[in-house]
Amino acid sequence: MSKVVGILGGGQLGLMMILEGRKLGVKFLVHDEDPQAPALGASDGRYIGDSWMELVNRSDIVTFEFEHVNPSAIKMAEEDGKLRPGSLTIRLKQDKIIEKSFLRDNGFPTPSFMIINNVEDVNRAIRRFGRVVFKVPRGAYDGKGQYYVMNDDDANRVPREFPLLAEEFVDIHREVSVILVRSSDGHVLTYPVTENHHHNGILLYSISPARIDDETANNARELAIGLANTLDYVGVLTVEFFVTRNGEVLINEFAPRVHNSGHWTLMGAAVSQFENHIRAILGMPIGPTELLKPSAIVNMLGVPYGDDLIRRVLMIPGTSVWWYGKTKVKPRRKMGHVNIIANNMDELGRRINEVLGVVYGNEISRYIPPWDAVESNDSRHALTTINSS
Amino acid sequence: MSKVVGILGGGQLGLMMILEGRKLGVKFLVHDEDPQAPALGASDGRYIGDSWMELVNRSDIVTFEFEHVNPSAIKMAEEDGKLRPGSLTIRLKQDKIIEKSFLRDNGFPTPSFMIINNVEDVNRAIRRFGRVVFKVPRGAYDGKGQYYVMNDDDANRVPREFPLLAEEFVDIHREVSVILVRSSDGHVLTYPVTENHHHNGILLYSISPARIDDETANNARELAIGLANTLDYVGVLTVEFFVTRNGEVLINEFAPRVHNSGHWTLMGAAVSQFENHIRAILGMPIGPTELLKPSAIVNMLGVPYGDDLIRRVLMIPGTSVWWYGKTKVKPRRKMGHVNIIANNMDELGRRINEVLGVVYGNEISRYIPPWDAVESNDSRHALTTINSS
Repeated sequence: MSKVVGILGGGQLGLMMILEGRKLGVKFLVHDEDPQAPALGASDGRYIGDSWMELVNRSDIVTFEFEHVNPSAIKMAEEDGKLRPGSLTIRLKQDKIIEKSFLRDNGFPTPSFMIINNVEDVNRAIRRFGRVVFKVPRGAYDGKGQYYVMNDDDANRVPREFPLLAEEFVDIHREVSVILVRSSDGHVLTYPVTENHHHNGILLYSISPARIDDETANNARELAIGLANTLDYVGVLTVEFFVTRNGEVLINEFAPRVHNSGHWTLMGAAVSQFENHIRAILGMPIGPTELLKPSAIVNMLGVPYGDDLIRRVLMIPGTSVWWYGKTKVKPRRKMGHVNIIANNMDELGRRINEVLGVVYGNEISRYIPPWDAVESNDSRHALTTINSS
Repeated sequence: MSKVVGILGGGQLGLMMILEGRKLGVKFLVHDEDPQAPALGASDGRYIGDSWMELVNRSDIVTFEFEHVNPSAIKMAEEDGKLRPGSLTIRLKQDKIIEKSFLRDNGFPTPSFMIINNVEDVNRAIRRFGRVVFKVPRGAYDGKGQYYVMNDDDANRVPREFPLLAEEFVDIHREVSVILVRSSDGHVLTYPVTENHHHNGILLYSISPARIDDETANNARELAIGLANTLDYVGVLTVEFFVTRNGEVLINEFAPRVHNSGHWTLMGAAVSQFENHIRAILGMPIGPTELLKPSAIVNMLGVPYGDDLIRRVLMIPGTSVWWYGKTKVKPRRKMGHVNIIANNMDELGRRINEVLGVVYGNEISRYIPPWDAVESNDSRHALTTINSS
């Protein structure tokens, strides 16, 4: 009998798991609160609203495409022995203070940090680190809930809601990520290191291989493998790093799932991160993760579907398009991405620029405004992040 | 608005069109007589039995994954201006005599042939060619309906049902195919030439690039391009060739669709034959067809699904599995295929042998018996084909 995989969360990551995993003879069930979620339409069974219990019961293995899913569903799937990866990673990801403390306590290098419980701690962090990033520990993602204090004037912008995480601001040479897959018998394969570029705090494009030296790349890969082993992880794990100007490799955070920065594997690797995730959680052997050609992705954020847009992107050599089929367009929303391959890194860079030109023209900040421009509730606090490069 | 593609035929080729084409933001409707057809389950709309008219009405573009589909559906789709490729290719494929005559009349090299209308013609063909392949012109495929006369004793095995096509038996060095895609504005890209190996008349495995010299490969590619232009073709076209022992390149037949021998493009090319077919029929620019690594496929014919089978295949480095999810196993039936990549042709050959060993063990002819062993109606006539290599 072919296996049934239940996916908690129906976003584009779930959609790509289905389209890449079905070849293995797997059936997919999807749960999402939102009946318009893109993965539901590609699934073999849709579970909306409170019906997650039924999904868990009918699945052989349960996974998730987003770490903030219904905790009761996670608990039930784990008690039934069906959850891959395990709930430890989800508990760590609920709170940035817990995540960072776990990394430090297990000997992984991170930027220096402090836990901030009151206004005095805010000032103490500024005195200690000089330049500080304050982070809301819960519910922050894609640059949301981050406050950069680069000088004394910025200090009063830090929200008076505690606790906060205060991190030393590090001078970043590159932001990179390692996507790896770990099988149920502990075998690990890493994809080549990927270099990530953000706009207003959200991933805009990624390039693989990252333009860093081999020693730094191996260092990042080894740290990622070490973390996967520490977590006794099964499936695809993403580890994001800062490579500092003085050559340090620091873990910024991890994601217990397939990741936007690994979408290049859909075109530039023989087995994508999505297929490998499904193989690993089903206890199957994992497949080749080598890069076949220099690869990149460009996110299509906040842009509406258009036949002409797709056509103009595909006119650029070496491209393909993934359109997620979301019903509503919103600024910053991930509507799709472009895969790009090229014969060398220079050609890849030119193609990335061409794609950016076609997708955004000269108006990138209209499609990808800072958080404070789209979320009025946050506008008192949010700053444009300056980590974008 | 994203486009709606209607597929006539719900087999594995339709399934792969959907899984590879949905990324472009396309919705897929599928028609098949059989409610268990594998592509139906992956579609956005299922049309069973007589409901093809509704599918044509609701589709922007209609294509087919099998050339013997409902002629009324083809006619209606063409009259509505929605059919890609056009019906000419389907008309040519209804009858091997018409197909061969078209090729000859348009100057394409084929094995010499005669049209056989009576018993005297049978003897005349044997006198003229020596060794002859007699073919039933309609409803023959995968080695069915072919009768090899290699000596006088074989002559009485030729069915007394006329007309028949009689072809000179050629000494074959290699059987190869060219998969190409032609866009609506006449731009053509060919995938590298693929080498095909049969067992009892049905494709068992394919290797790309084919092990033939560059001149022969270019010759085949040019002939395929010429045929696509002659047909004013839009979409993926497959042309099958015999490369003879004296270096001639002869067209055996063509298929107006994606093809089993092009399944290696799912793993070994950046854009698969399926994605390129969908791009072309939607009037979008077509994508890169180069081979990224030496690639192969092995068909899984007549074998039942097994977790252990899939696991043992995936243990072989460089493999992936496509399982089609057909409900019923039959001898010779295409149940799935294995994709393989390797670093060089020797390694590829070893991996093909390992996959064959895992899938079939020592019992390949139990899973892939000759036609006469599975189709009692044909047992009077059918011979095991001897073109297998």
